[in-house]
Amino acid sequence: MKAQIKITLKNGVLDPQGKAIGHALEGLGFSGIGDVRQGKYIEVALTETDEAKAREAVERMCKDLLANTVIENYSFEIVG
Amino acid sequence: MKAQIKITLKNGVLDPQGKAIGHALEGLGFSGIGDVRQGKYIEVALTETDEAKAREAVERMCKDLLANTVIENYSFEIVG
Repeated sequence: MKAQIKITLKNGVLDPQGKAIGHALEGLGFSGIGDVRQGKYIEVALTETDEAKAREAVERMCKDLLANTVIENYSFEIVG
Repeated sequence: MKAQIKITLKNGVLDPQGKAIGHALEGLGFSGIGDVRQGKYIEVALTETDEAKAREAVERMCKDLLANTVIENYSFEIVG
């Protein structure tokens, strides 16, 4: 199985990297660009075959290491 | 509308950051961890209301700026 994890900054947390991407897109001529936010995407291959157990393990991984839950939200899907 | 863009390294491209995450997870006692790959996740708010046009614009954004298509793949969804 594979966990596909998205980690994003919480609303209200400044995101200068996202802002820079937004400005660069406008500089390239794209119009109608609103807020841009950059986050992280992590894929973790798991040998676990039980989806419920995999889900629980990935939840702990996010809390313990992958996301800083003070300023970041996480969400994930288990696939495969 | 909002574009949710995932950018990942192509297979075969070394990913030391992913490897470091994998080692850290093992160090924390997680077992059954296979390959870990880190990518980027970008959300772009769009004022465009036509989904086909939004899709086309985001495709161009990925090719022109967001992804380095020599070493990265991208995929996206249009939501909202």
